Amino acid sequence: MNKYLLTIAYDGTNYVGWQVQPNGLSIQTVVGNALNTILREKTDLTGATRTDSGVHAKGQTAHFQTPAAVNIRQFLYSINALLPADIRVIKMSPVPTDFHARYHAISKTYHYHLWLEPFVDPTQRLYVTHVRKSLDLFCLQEAAALLIGTHDFSAFANHAHQGAASKDPVRTLYRIDVVPQIGGIRIEFTGDGFLYKMVRNMVGTLLDVASGTLSLNDMQRAFSARDRRLAGQAAPAQGLFLMEVHYE
Amino acid sequence: MNKYLLTIAYDGTNYVGWQVQPNGLSIQTVVGNALNTILREKTDLTGATRTDSGVHAKGQTAHFQTPAAVNIRQFLYSINALLPADIRVIKMSPVPTDFHARYHAISKTYHYHLWLEPFVDPTQRLYVTHVRKSLDLFCLQEAAALLIGTHDFSAFANHAHQGAASKDPVRTLYRIDVVPQIGGIRIEFTGDGFLYKMVRNMVGTLLDVASGTLSLNDMQRAFSARDRRLAGQAAPAQGLFLMEVHYE
Repeated sequence: MNKYLLTIAYDGTNYVGWQVQPNGLSIQTVVGNALNTILREKTDLTGATRTDSGVHAKGQTAHFQTPAAVNIRQFLYSINALLPADIRVIKMSPVPTDFHARYHAISKTYHYHLWLEPFVDPTQRLYVTHVRKSLDLFCLQEAAALLIGTHDFSAFANHAHQGAASKDPVRTLYRIDVVPQIGGIRIEFTGDGFLYKMVRNMVGTLLDVASGTLSLNDMQRAFSARDRRLAGQAAPAQGLFLMEVHYE
Repeated sequence: MNKYLLTIAYDGTNYVGWQVQPNGLSIQTVVGNALNTILREKTDLTGATRTDSGVHAKGQTAHFQTPAAVNIRQFLYSINALLPADIRVIKMSPVPTDFHARYHAISKTYHYHLWLEPFVDPTQRLYVTHVRKSLDLFCLQEAAALLIGTHDFSAFANHAHQGAASKDPVRTLYRIDVVPQIGGIRIEFTGDGFLYKMVRNMVGTLLDVASGTLSLNDMQRAFSARDRRLAGQAAPAQGLFLMEVHYE
């Protein structure tokens, strides 16, 4: 068997998310169907991580196996010709047969885009979250610093669909950077793993602190108490990009 | 009477262009309707220039008159609340009653976005033109340099709908800059005025020269002969942005 890792970029606006869902079209379904058409067989496409409905990606990864070796250059042109323009396979690499897109990922990077000016650039409207409150960016940086390191992130984890909490809610956040960009800022997160809705819940809480709705002490208390109800609401999906899944 | 100048940004994808057309929704119609709703009167909205179907803007301008003085800050919030998210009024300035958005414009700047890598970023798909041929960027710069200055641009002018050629086809191009950006380049044009489809026709011809379809000599010959048929085809609308209309 030959195993390949795909790097996939998508505009999540018109999809129910990465994962196959009963209520709409998923990116996994669309890419999987294109894959089956090219390979003329049914194969499984295993993503590194789920992304929710409306979340975008510049570097989702997913692996699949196939008996025949594939011409990578030709494959990339073929699959992108089959895919709609809001999904692109941007890279393809051969990987060892024991490689797993999810289990072998050592860290992931997410970016969250915030538009802080009064009126959102029309070409950015699907890719940023518009914040109308004025933000104390120094305060936002202070709050972000509290999250860096190894912690129990239960305060920022929603339960997944099946109602099952993640068994181990401890994760390590290597960095959170607040980077100025046209119209506002983006917040960059790199960590060894992220619980369900963790980035959006962290962003929502950071925004509460930066806008003065939540004090730094309250945030620290919610974090320590590992109580989801004490932290801020999830920020909207459309500002979030899965940027990169890192492997050894 | 009070006169105001609006600066308008839009994603042109879903419109027939700036100008009112019988066959679909124009940006002028949508902004004009919002304006009439707020002012509770019918007023004329006069744009600095037309943009074609699918062309975008970051800085179209348009003026209107109204008997009552307007609270600018409040007006901006009101009109943007009425407009769809793909159109935004980003600025509003009081102007003298003899001011005219079109006649008083001294120059305009357009950007044309070219994606040169194999696969277009999904979030950029509506805002770039994908060029699959490999380009000689040095050659493109050389060709662009021929266009700078005061010339008869008939070779790059289509006739407008009524079949009437512009009476005076002489224009001055102050600069053409080729600027690297993510995924490719943008070509920036500033000139005192542009004939119908002139930017797209120049870009199409520059691409022909840069890809080797047209020699620099052939381009020079078409330019001197003022013969539209000898120059390149118009580049697609979706890569074009009206960036700024300059006034004294």
